[in-house]
Amino acid sequence: MKNPPALEQLIESLRCLPGVGPKSALRMAYYLLQRDRKGASGLAYALSNALETVGHCQLCNNFSEQPTCSTCASEKRDTSLLCVVEMPTDVMMLEQTQSYDGLYFVLMGRLSPLDGIGPKEINLDKLIKRAQTGAENKSVNEVILATNYTVEGEATAHYIMELLKARNIKVSRIARGLPMGGEIEYVDSGTLAQAIVERKRVN
Amino acid sequence: MKNPPALEQLIESLRCLPGVGPKSALRMAYYLLQRDRKGASGLAYALSNALETVGHCQLCNNFSEQPTCSTCASEKRDTSLLCVVEMPTDVMMLEQTQSYDGLYFVLMGRLSPLDGIGPKEINLDKLIKRAQTGAENKSVNEVILATNYTVEGEATAHYIMELLKARNIKVSRIARGLPMGGEIEYVDSGTLAQAIVERKRVN
Repeated sequence: MKNPPALEQLIESLRCLPGVGPKSALRMAYYLLQRDRKGASGLAYALSNALETVGHCQLCNNFSEQPTCSTCASEKRDTSLLCVVEMPTDVMMLEQTQSYDGLYFVLMGRLSPLDGIGPKEINLDKLIKRAQTGAENKSVNEVILATNYTVEGEATAHYIMELLKARNIKVSRIARGLPMGGEIEYVDSGTLAQAIVERKRVN
Repeated sequence: MKNPPALEQLIESLRCLPGVGPKSALRMAYYLLQRDRKGASGLAYALSNALETVGHCQLCNNFSEQPTCSTCASEKRDTSLLCVVEMPTDVMMLEQTQSYDGLYFVLMGRLSPLDGIGPKEINLDKLIKRAQTGAENKSVNEVILATNYTVEGEATAHYIMELLKARNIKVSRIARGLPMGGEIEYVDSGTLAQAIVERKRVN
């Protein structure tokens, strides 16, 4: 007694989703076929449709249905600033702060040699070209590195910094320190040490 | 700054998978579009294909690509026995024991009123008809209830038992007791109490 081949194939295919192992895949397949066939057909369509229509913005490398995304195409942005982030969600977070009006470059990942993610996978060629030539003949004055303050994010920022420095492009890194509402008693010592090193004169 | 519509739609559609919330759906969508477009298109195909070809066996209600599944169609099975289980995986487990050669009926779930799963959702009409009329004019002598020994599985077994008793069909329930290798010191008291109540004379 085995599952029908098409069901086995579905179980196998579901395993391409990150974080889905054999047991979850089995549960998902049974659930879809038994209780949510409409959802399953919607998912099949959404997958095909997204694969067909969603590509990358030629300037910022973010997901986009047009060759140039709406942020890069906007005339209200300061084209002299280029903020480098790891993921599209980071762009959304920065936009929510409403304190940055420059443009972005989305790496779509971070350097992670153990996972096989090197400079090519995070599109560094494209970033260098973008930083050197600018967009529509408007050159980039400063590249702001806004990768995460994790080990991998730091390594990525360092690597990019070296690349850009060799090409005489001004590079900065987002500040590190106590978070808003942070209490010295509860903050970790790494953050606190950095906050002291990067102290800012106030008078 | 928002995700492109086709990407938003994919994120939304991924949420139909059980156990997938907004954060997981976002991560999955990014992963598929960025790192595994081949897997995504395979998944889209597998979903459509499974929806098209996988239906239910008219006799046992298990998933099947044919109107009658291979187990029900087999001539080696004892057609007088009908074992009722919750899920297709239960059939596989029972087949692995190689100690049962009757036929099956797969409920595809268990009674769970809070989740909106009542007698209709677990195909009890089909089960009653199957138990009463048999397959290919071979009548069913005994229905073995092999739902789980959980609260919901027990309730389901009880409900089915009442339905079948009213129609004069012989019903049994799989045994409860200590598992193989079970030590009295470590077994839970409910199991132990049941093992005493259902003790079996050995001389």
